[in-house]
Amino acid sequence: MQPLCDAVVAIVGLGLMGGSLALALREKNACKKIFGIAPNAATCAQVLSRGVVDEASSDLSLASDADIIVLATPVRTVLEQLPRVGEIARAGAIIMDLGSTKREIVRAMERLPAHVQPIGAHPLCGKETSGFDAAEANLYRDAVFVLTPLARTASQTLAFAESFATILGAHPIILDAARHDKIVAGISHLPFVLAATLMTTTNELARMDNLLFTLAASGFRDTSRLAASDTTMMLDILLTNSDNVADSIRTCTRHLTELADWIVDKDENALRAILESAAIPRRELFR
Amino acid sequence: MQPLCDAVVAIVGLGLMGGSLALALREKNACKKIFGIAPNAATCAQVLSRGVVDEASSDLSLASDADIIVLATPVRTVLEQLPRVGEIARAGAIIMDLGSTKREIVRAMERLPAHVQPIGAHPLCGKETSGFDAAEANLYRDAVFVLTPLARTASQTLAFAESFATILGAHPIILDAARHDKIVAGISHLPFVLAATLMTTTNELARMDNLLFTLAASGFRDTSRLAASDTTMMLDILLTNSDNVADSIRTCTRHLTELADWIVDKDENALRAILESAAIPRRELFR
Repeated sequence: MQPLCDAVVAIVGLGLMGGSLALALREKNACKKIFGIAPNAATCAQVLSRGVVDEASSDLSLASDADIIVLATPVRTVLEQLPRVGEIARAGAIIMDLGSTKREIVRAMERLPAHVQPIGAHPLCGKETSGFDAAEANLYRDAVFVLTPLARTASQTLAFAESFATILGAHPIILDAARHDKIVAGISHLPFVLAATLMTTTNELARMDNLLFTLAASGFRDTSRLAASDTTMMLDILLTNSDNVADSIRTCTRHLTELADWIVDKDENALRAILESAAIPRRELFR
Repeated sequence: MQPLCDAVVAIVGLGLMGGSLALALREKNACKKIFGIAPNAATCAQVLSRGVVDEASSDLSLASDADIIVLATPVRTVLEQLPRVGEIARAGAIIMDLGSTKREIVRAMERLPAHVQPIGAHPLCGKETSGFDAAEANLYRDAVFVLTPLARTASQTLAFAESFATILGAHPIILDAARHDKIVAGISHLPFVLAATLMTTTNELARMDNLLFTLAASGFRDTSRLAASDTTMMLDILLTNSDNVADSIRTCTRHLTELADWIVDKDENALRAILESAAIPRRELFR
């Protein structure tokens, strides 16, 4: 495997993640060439005219000349694209995805031809905005960049992926796909679910009092932010991590029910204990 | 009632809300004198030495010379302080609080001596930080400043309170205390409860996997932010708005259970519909 600076990188999907990756690689002059693949002809024209990519196409076959193919599409689109990418990829090509759940993707990667090198990845740097217009060259900086190698992933491929993450300013960390999916269910998917459900609940309350959203301040803004996330992307995440997400929702629901009971019973000691045990680690975590 | 510029303002409690009020009034040179009352002698010394207040004391009786007394303490402390404030306040003094729930405070205000003028207030500009060190002169700028007048509140008192809010750069809005409490249960107290419960749930998950918080990104940071709020302040809020808060938690819990079921059943149509109906108003609300 040649170093990244001599490699042709094909990015499939030029939304927030793929677009930001193209911008970062270009800004750092990190690779030989960047190919961009997006279904939308207007996006292809935009990235070409802005010089973000060297070639652009809505046809996956552009990736056949790439040394590394990065799939930056929603999880279930990655699952659909993988067999075709396996067909067209050159021998020795690295195939990496940026999907937010990893078990199903890693399973699909096992079925790729033996002459390609697959590795799963998940950079934790999402935003609630989407599309190339939301992309930014600094998106990956300081982000944790999870890598989920397969049994068949060569050590050189893993080392390449680690240096790829580091060049982007991110921090690579190697995890088993199952462990990754369990962790993100709590730390990433549950926050989205709570934000969306906060919106569902307040929408319902707002139908009874049209002044409700007038009183929304920064606390509501931040707690509800993730509800604005791209629906297709989130739907794919929830449906490919359904067991873990459902578990984390149910644990959360149990704690909410307990809290509501303590509030009704005015159980001040129980309330103070649970609120303090939530507040203290949160203050430690983000200073 | 003289204009604010000729008035002596006593602020009881010099934390985030009271401290920011003192800083704002001083910066705008908005009143004749500012008296600060705080239980902590160090805070009194600090605000005096920084010139934020003209006089400071840990004794409420300093407020007896004020034209307007602003109670900026946690809700149940306001409830405790009101009778004593009523005893010491001069005839014609305005007594205003900044508490986040209004029904119990307004009921306690009804019992104040006839020669004082009470009015409830709730500026929606909290933060998860607390204490005078977190105070800032701009805190009230652009905030919605709810006023909950009593039947006995004179129209001149209400007009004075409206101009007080406006001078701070805030937007006054007049609401019935019961309506206020119902609205904030959904738009303010529920977001806090969800943030705290997100911390409770993820703390539990982190005990099973010590890498969990390593993967926390901006989405988790924002959704959990309110969990760091001052516990005593939040406890007072939950316990003086228990009926409304419990209702909003239960509505939310119902929606969460429904969502978990759809995720397990892989009911894509139901999920897409609910997530879109959460995403669209959120994108409209904060652009």
